[in-house]
Amino acid sequence: MNNKKIDFRTDLADERRNLYKKANKLENEIDGIETQEDVIDEKIKVTKVNVLNEKAEEIIGKKKGKYITIDIKKINLLTEEEKEQSSNVLAKELKELIGEKVQKKEDILVVGLGNSEVTPDALGPNVIKEVEITRHIINYLPQYIDENTRPVSAIAPGVLGTTGIETLEIIKGVVEHIKPKLLIVIDALASRSMERISSTIQISNTGIVPGGGVGNTRKEITEETLGIPVIALGIPTVVETAVVVNDALDIFIEKLQKDAKSNDYLNNLKEEDNYEMIKEALIPKEFNFIVTPKEIDELVLNMSDIVARGINFSMD
Amino acid sequence: MNNKKIDFRTDLADERRNLYKKANKLENEIDGIETQEDVIDEKIKVTKVNVLNEKAEEIIGKKKGKYITIDIKKINLLTEEEKEQSSNVLAKELKELIGEKVQKKEDILVVGLGNSEVTPDALGPNVIKEVEITRHIINYLPQYIDENTRPVSAIAPGVLGTTGIETLEIIKGVVEHIKPKLLIVIDALASRSMERISSTIQISNTGIVPGGGVGNTRKEITEETLGIPVIALGIPTVVETAVVVNDALDIFIEKLQKDAKSNDYLNNLKEEDNYEMIKEALIPKEFNFIVTPKEIDELVLNMSDIVARGINFSMD
Amino acid sequence: MNNKKIDFRTDLADERRNLYKKANKLENEIDGIETQEDVIDEKIKVTKVNVLNEKAEEIIGKKKGKYITIDIKKINLLTEEEKEQSSNVLAKELKELIGEKVQKKEDILVVGLGNSEVTPDALGPNVIKEVEITRHIINYLPQYIDENTRPVSAIAPGVLGTTGIETLEIIKGVVEHIKPKLLIVIDALASRSMERISSTIQISNTGIVPGGGVGNTRKEITEETLGIPVIALGIPTVVETAVVVNDALDIFIEKLQKDAKSNDYLNNLKEEDNYEMIKEALIPKEFNFIVTPKEIDELVLNMSDIVARGINFSMD
Amino acid sequence: MNNKKIDFRTDLADERRNLYKKANKLENEIDGIETQEDVIDEKIKVTKVNVLNEKAEEIIGKKKGKYITIDIKKINLLTEEEKEQSSNVLAKELKELIGEKVQKKEDILVVGLGNSEVTPDALGPNVIKEVEITRHIINYLPQYIDENTRPVSAIAPGVLGTTGIETLEIIKGVVEHIKPKLLIVIDALASRSMERISSTIQISNTGIVPGGGVGNTRKEITEETLGIPVIALGIPTVVETAVVVNDALDIFIEKLQKDAKSNDYLNNLKEEDNYEMIKEALIPKEFNFIVTPKEIDELVLNMSDIVARGINFSMD
Repeated sequence: MNNKKIDFRTDLADERRNLYKKANKLENEIDGIETQEDVIDEKIKVTKVNVLNEKAEEIIGKKKGKYITIDIKKINLLTEEEKEQSSNVLAKELKELIGEKVQKKEDILVVGLGNSEVTPDALGPNVIKEVEITRHIINYLPQYIDENTRPVSAIAPGVLGTTGIETLEIIKGVVEHIKPKLLIVIDALASRSMERISSTIQISNTGIVPGGGVGNTRKEITEETLGIPVIALGIPTVVETAVVVNDALDIFIEKLQKDAKSNDYLNNLKEEDNYEMIKEALIPKEFNFIVTPKEIDELVLNMSDIVARGINFSMD
Repeated sequence: MNNKKIDFRTDLADERRNLYKKANKLENEIDGIETQEDVIDEKIKVTKVNVLNEKAEEIIGKKKGKYITIDIKKINLLTEEEKEQSSNVLAKELKELIGEKVQKKEDILVVGLGNSEVTPDALGPNVIKEVEITRHIINYLPQYIDENTRPVSAIAPGVLGTTGIETLEIIKGVVEHIKPKLLIVIDALASRSMERISSTIQISNTGIVPGGGVGNTRKEITEETLGIPVIALGIPTVVETAVVVNDALDIFIEKLQKDAKSNDYLNNLKEEDNYEMIKEALIPKEFNFIVTPKEIDELVLNMSDIVARGINFSMD
Repeated sequence: MNNKKIDFRTDLADERRNLYKKANKLENEIDGIETQEDVIDEKIKVTKVNVLNEKAEEIIGKKKGKYITIDIKKINLLTEEEKEQSSNVLAKELKELIGEKVQKKEDILVVGLGNSEVTPDALGPNVIKEVEITRHIINYLPQYIDENTRPVSAIAPGVLGTTGIETLEIIKGVVEHIKPKLLIVIDALASRSMERISSTIQISNTGIVPGGGVGNTRKEITEETLGIPVIALGIPTVVETAVVVNDALDIFIEKLQKDAKSNDYLNNLKEEDNYEMIKEALIPKEFNFIVTPKEIDELVLNMSDIVARGINFSMD
Repeated sequence: MNNKKIDFRTDLADERRNLYKKANKLENEIDGIETQEDVIDEKIKVTKVNVLNEKAEEIIGKKKGKYITIDIKKINLLTEEEKEQSSNVLAKELKELIGEKVQKKEDILVVGLGNSEVTPDALGPNVIKEVEITRHIINYLPQYIDENTRPVSAIAPGVLGTTGIETLEIIKGVVEHIKPKLLIVIDALASRSMERISSTIQISNTGIVPGGGVGNTRKEITEETLGIPVIALGIPTVVETAVVVNDALDIFIEKLQKDAKSNDYLNNLKEEDNYEMIKEALIPKEFNFIVTPKEIDELVLNMSDIVARGINFSMD
């Protein structure tokens, strides 16, 4: 098979699948991949991508497993009820994945990756602050808590740049000492689309590679490295300039076409994913910035709130 | 003369001048504009643009007056000495403009525009926190302060969206009550270049239009509206997607040219400023985001520090 | 009449009334003062003190008018429902006072006094962040808002120490420019009781004296100084060491009495309010600190939330 | 020997020694304890207490080892030079203790205990943010750093109440994985004196018991529990009401004595440390609050700055 290899530059399985199909001009679903889309309401859509075998694994560069993408529209304008609804949708999917791996009342450790001092990277630590912690009450003050409560603990291990320590080493240390039965890891991702910034949650039962989406591949946080199942919650909060330019170029050429100003060369350009070519052009000029929307503070606050409540709702 | 009209989409006089010259393919300086460039050292460059008459005023859409642009390279990597040097350069220019308008010991009010809860808009309020306030000590505890100290006060009036009040109304009210002799206003701007984000300071003796650079023209803060001279310190912290795309398009076509893949159409495209055409394409798709670099928290912190010290150094 | 004069060291009318009665060993209510107590539920109590004439005004050192004290027990342990209930109680009282002064749809300006960088003084600025602002929408985008909405605006003017400007001057300036019909001012107070820290709200229709409770009497914010009615919301967040010691001394002597270790001198001491004597002893030793509970961050967060919602609920 | 047992309610060895001497009316130094006092300048004093044997250990309830107390006067009013001087004094003492345990270039892990959301408990996490981290640069980018640089890493493990995990368990996990040769632990302490709040640093080579000073004895962080030497940096940030009352009572009785209003009973009271008796009286009334000065935000900021720089200066 001589399909085009792609530098996906996104952590979202759903985006990778679409990019691959575009690049290879596929009409049908990729072999070894199963998808399902549920429109919950006007604002919320759930897309499930199952990577079934190793061939599919290789093609889209994501481990075999389930990838559930929840897209929430205009998150900064949601009403309180719509936020609650978003948390409920997240809780439902999360609960199902948790139920496949551990029993009720088995210990869960929630890990919020990222740097609390960098707004687009603060989502993980922010969520941790709102997760309801019960492990210490069950251990020290069991009389104050319902006996069916699941023990939940949480840490925000910081980032290599501020601790000097690989995140995985900190997590391993904690896991070995407190022996949870399952890990939930929250991470800020890179995406291929500006609209998805802090508006999409990808849940997967395959674990996570911290920073993977933005170029610095450090060690993965998975059942292989930790010995317990890992559910990853990833939320895109940044995009590369090359991504923005690539998307905008298509829109721009489309407009030229409408105005009858385009030409064959540009028409061809539009059929391709030009991300890599654009990136190659931008990098030597030091122009391939990582950017985030101006409203990122509010986006991260709203998303943290939805994710924390979703986790809390899924723990019983 | 039927020169091209431009939607500059930048508050920097220096950028406007360059865009105008590019659009009209001018070799020489624009009539009615005087410029001077000083390279202070490897990291710092000062560009002065004087708008001398009404014709020049109309051409670049900036009021008659002085516009001093200080560019600082790689501000997140500066040493403590380089930061101090940057503050000194700012202080020198600021002192000169202040000296043209008021006497030593005459009251100055510093106003930090912007929203402290929105990282790329927090520069003004941040600076205010570090400005050395003396007015109340001179008024209430004169024995504790050198008798030659200039009375300095400062406010962060917030933004229309969180106060419900026009910023100008708040400033007017304060100015009428405490009667300063000069206003220094700090504002976050939009720029036409990603590299300038939180790395450039524009000082001008013409006042400021809050938010002017990013589309929402509210009332100006100038000697005309306030009755006292207004020195504006503007720092770019955001750019539009269309700006990023426009810049990147040039770089991209340049690469196509090198690879001998370009064509006449693209070559022409590169000679123009395509910002407006790109914007027109992006807006209907709701794709013309305002973006900021991932590192904006640190950029704003470093710039706030340099600006606050520059102001403090210029007050004696 | 030669009743004892008291340095009340509290801004709460209800505490002053009790201190005065204790100091003068009064059984009945003070002449010219009317009181009423409503126990809302286990956690919430409302006490109303009306100062009816100038004699009473002089005796307790509070302007003629209504003082409503809402006491909330164990505010850091409230459930979401109990918080909502607290906000409702506040809204009901506030609405009544507002209704006595202005019509529906008349402009209200909310002012949050205090310093957002000092935890026990940040309550005012914190509340402002959560107040629903409508004035600018009514002015600029009336199509997006119910036509019966009251115009509400809000500012946090900062404190003299960080602005160099008397708070009253800033408020005056804003009031003259935007001409609201009523002012609501939120301020952190000093109290005579540790238990009341961030657990009590005093609402009054008489205005406020910023910092009055902790020694630095600056200009008052009242109908006299501003020309429009002023409703003050005061929340105790600090106490003096002398206050703590005074309270503790009583408890300590009581215990000595129980253990039969006391004596006449101490028994007498307990009958008096020894605050002033204690303060006189502590001041020369620089020991009369202003203190706040270790939990002040959480106390202020919870109280800000209750107050902001109470204000929002009272605006329709 | 039947000396009085004391509930010291302070983590400072120097305060314990003084309390013990007062309680037992000792003129000379306690047997098995060596002390030395150095007045560095008007603002800074260093007191060294060496606990030499097990008898002394038992008497003052502190492990055998060195306790160095640095007292800094009026820390909120220090000039930049005085802060630098304070950091230098800390660095000198710290360097000496480090040098007794490890070689140059051996790995150090710095741990900042406490809760970053609780102002008086945020000192540890605050310091961590300013410590210069080198371990990851030495590991991944050695070409960018002097080859003699010591590998330094840092974590802020949070507190039991927000993680659900014993702090010691997190530290153990990290220590086992990254194998540092020495630990520096920073903790907020309780003190017996209001003046010492965020103005005193105790350095010891004996490790630390988190929260030990304020009643909740959790597991100790020492060479015994971790297998590597532990240097503890403790800074008082809170006091109990009973402590404040005890101190104030002495001052108050002293004043009564001066005014010739005291009596034998009170005179005796003053000779004793009445802390325990006061505490017994206050606890049943729920009146034994933990308090902190109103200025705690600024105190913690200034102290964090001094401690972080002291640590950074001591690392070469």
